[in-house]
Amino acid sequence: MKQFTSVHDVADPKKLVESALELKASPYAHKALGKNKTVCLIFLNPSLRTRLSTQKAAMNLGMEVMVFDINEDGWKLEFEDGVVMNGDKAEHVKEAVRVVSLYCDIIGVRTFAGLQNREEDYAERILNQFIQHSSVPVVSLESAIRHPLQSLADMITIYESGIVRPKIAVTWAPHVKPLPQAVGNSFLEWAAAFGWDITLANPKGYNPAPEFLRGVKVTHEQAEALDGADFVYAKSWSSYDRYGKLPGDNADWTVTQEKMSLTNNGKFMHCLPLRRNLVASDSVVDNSIVLKQAENRIFAAQSVMKEMLENN
Amino acid sequence: MKQFTSVHDVADPKKLVESALELKASPYAHKALGKNKTVCLIFLNPSLRTRLSTQKAAMNLGMEVMVFDINEDGWKLEFEDGVVMNGDKAEHVKEAVRVVSLYCDIIGVRTFAGLQNREEDYAERILNQFIQHSSVPVVSLESAIRHPLQSLADMITIYESGIVRPKIAVTWAPHVKPLPQAVGNSFLEWAAAFGWDITLANPKGYNPAPEFLRGVKVTHEQAEALDGADFVYAKSWSSYDRYGKLPGDNADWTVTQEKMSLTNNGKFMHCLPLRRNLVASDSVVDNSIVLKQAENRIFAAQSVMKEMLENN
Amino acid sequence: MKQFTSVHDVADPKKLVESALELKASPYAHKALGKNKTVCLIFLNPSLRTRLSTQKAAMNLGMEVMVFDINEDGWKLEFEDGVVMNGDKAEHVKEAVRVVSLYCDIIGVRTFAGLQNREEDYAERILNQFIQHSSVPVVSLESAIRHPLQSLADMITIYESGIVRPKIAVTWAPHVKPLPQAVGNSFLEWAAAFGWDITLANPKGYNPAPEFLRGVKVTHEQAEALDGADFVYAKSWSSYDRYGKLPGDNADWTVTQEKMSLTNNGKFMHCLPLRRNLVASDSVVDNSIVLKQAENRIFAAQSVMKEMLENN
Repeated sequence: MKQFTSVHDVADPKKLVESALELKASPYAHKALGKNKTVCLIFLNPSLRTRLSTQKAAMNLGMEVMVFDINEDGWKLEFEDGVVMNGDKAEHVKEAVRVVSLYCDIIGVRTFAGLQNREEDYAERILNQFIQHSSVPVVSLESAIRHPLQSLADMITIYESGIVRPKIAVTWAPHVKPLPQAVGNSFLEWAAAFGWDITLANPKGYNPAPEFLRGVKVTHEQAEALDGADFVYAKSWSSYDRYGKLPGDNADWTVTQEKMSLTNNGKFMHCLPLRRNLVASDSVVDNSIVLKQAENRIFAAQSVMKEMLENN
Repeated sequence: MKQFTSVHDVADPKKLVESALELKASPYAHKALGKNKTVCLIFLNPSLRTRLSTQKAAMNLGMEVMVFDINEDGWKLEFEDGVVMNGDKAEHVKEAVRVVSLYCDIIGVRTFAGLQNREEDYAERILNQFIQHSSVPVVSLESAIRHPLQSLADMITIYESGIVRPKIAVTWAPHVKPLPQAVGNSFLEWAAAFGWDITLANPKGYNPAPEFLRGVKVTHEQAEALDGADFVYAKSWSSYDRYGKLPGDNADWTVTQEKMSLTNNGKFMHCLPLRRNLVASDSVVDNSIVLKQAENRIFAAQSVMKEMLENN
Repeated sequence: MKQFTSVHDVADPKKLVESALELKASPYAHKALGKNKTVCLIFLNPSLRTRLSTQKAAMNLGMEVMVFDINEDGWKLEFEDGVVMNGDKAEHVKEAVRVVSLYCDIIGVRTFAGLQNREEDYAERILNQFIQHSSVPVVSLESAIRHPLQSLADMITIYESGIVRPKIAVTWAPHVKPLPQAVGNSFLEWAAAFGWDITLANPKGYNPAPEFLRGVKVTHEQAEALDGADFVYAKSWSSYDRYGKLPGDNADWTVTQEKMSLTNNGKFMHCLPLRRNLVASDSVVDNSIVLKQAENRIFAAQSVMKEMLENN
């Protein structure tokens, strides 16, 4: 695996989940693998779980870790080709990434959608430039339109439940500000790859890009999606159609205990951070499996980096 | 030890000091203890000594270290229960701490008093939420009202002197801005637990909270406290009574060489950072044992984490 | 070696380059040397290559690394002696450095010229205070007037070429803002120590300080320097004479492919970060050896720290 940016980079997603579960059972079994190997985690945006779980995963594999917050510790990067760099960008991504990849064996990179320009975000311009210029494998720590380590952790969490063909409700959730579509996009794509039964509920105007709706039933009635669900995955995202907008008041989309009673003893899931009593009520969160998801972030990252160390 | 937040968490403070001195003599003797163990140091406030000495202590024990500056690298946390999180706080401390404690074996956390609301500060709301929600032991790296690793390092430093029942002067010191009471509170509490002879000198209106005055004589004459002292511990703090205020000009409280001549060849102590010629004159600082205190920060942290690794 | 701040600190520069090349061939051969040793990298200014390559170098030697961004993670330092510290500086450099040197075995420090006060910058006030107060060896990670790890990496890169007495053109380059003279100064000084044939081209008024011109021919015609050169080292710097100024438009100093055709199949060099199409055209950068220089930063730092670990 030369890159981990979406489920499409994974030859056998189920096998990767099984590898992650083996690592969860024996986290330190492959510590020799990472000897003299270094991962450099580059953050263009804030992060808590991803930052810490990926560090932990790397250390479990015996790797060294370097963390680089490019905006705080470095300077602005230029992503355009051919320009005269006489503005506020001190270095071109070409040099920055080529150089960093000389100093490590795996690069992880975190970047968010700008939510200003849909084509630019959906072209994954920043992530793709990292991949293009890196001489070592690149792991997405969340990109403009996907969050594959989160989705892999979600798959591990659902897979662990032992339910053979789980019924999954994905529900849009309210928020105070427009968020990227990455987590929702990515979850739908991975769950579809596993062939699970997925119903997406969202208000009109909040459909994801068509490419993420393959194998997904869509409804605008939240109750319809929740009905009989084994898992309820909530996430807020801004509009794809009216790109980056978050119009109107949608507080009635908050997931409550009452709504959860429609499910088949369904488990509530969320990638975190989560705004309590906005996305979901306190009692829903307190009875959820969000911590299992968060814990599985370690083994998601560890299974991906293990594969990269073994096969590059 | 499930938590280290004050001397009250320590079954036998003298034994802990002796353990620290053994570690000082053989810093790397217990490197196997920390194998595959990780400490996560979370900073809500700036730090130099605590940050670096605790990292060093963990590495001496063979642990891995993750450092997380939550305000720079993450987002604002919500500490209130039951609120609708529709403001500027992206994550509740419940999730943040529960998650971080899945990624490590010990959490260290640094937070300062806000100095706006005395009840809130003295309830140690932030520290206590970390303890409440963490599934692993928590070490205070300074909290709203105590700085126990500093105090433990201070005890080690005094204990090393070999003076059996040292006479200690604690003196309030001038400053340009209102500081928390944590270091003063904590030192008084630890020194009292050792049964040492403590006299506190401060201007009227600067008494610590009553709970920190047990076993402590108080005077408003600095010379009275310094008279015959073996150790002079200086620190500025804002008022507890007129909470967070720093009224008037108190430049005459600066510790000078002349004042030190009142002591029994007393050693000047301070937790650092120290404003020279405001808290104490250059020559007092240059002839002090502040560097011994700073060095002992390593072994204070190391003895605490060693105990946690052995007994959890 | 108690300090590495310039070529003058190195007994035998050629031997150090050869040591670096041995480390490049076997990066992990000396991993036992750094056991239980720690380097603390202190940044007063941003850094990408230096930050990451020095970490990697330390890890290659088996050392632990602590990174401290003093402005973000700590507080402002006072560098003046004898002042009453009642302003915005919370700690004197004396205490800060003395303390940090208790927590590690080597200190690395990065600081830039302020470009306001030439005498202050050229006195290397900040770097020299670190050296004066540290109880452990100090490595400059770039200082006000020199960047010795960069220069050492440059020497390694030229030395690797196998050209016995290379002809080197150093050319001033345009920029949008006044930059320190450190990289240019330092390169000239090191290249002169190797006895290489150096011609410096710059616009009138941009000569470095006289001490850096020993063994260097100077011209104001860029083509004259480039003629027959084996290496072309480009760098922008502000004026030494009119200190810190960057007057006028000098876009005609941009290094282009056409200009490179004057050379002896010359290799283009730059320390990075580099503003493309301002310092040099895209095609010059794409055909350059800047990545070799960047890679050699690891072995420059590693050879220096290896020497310090062996001989202190």
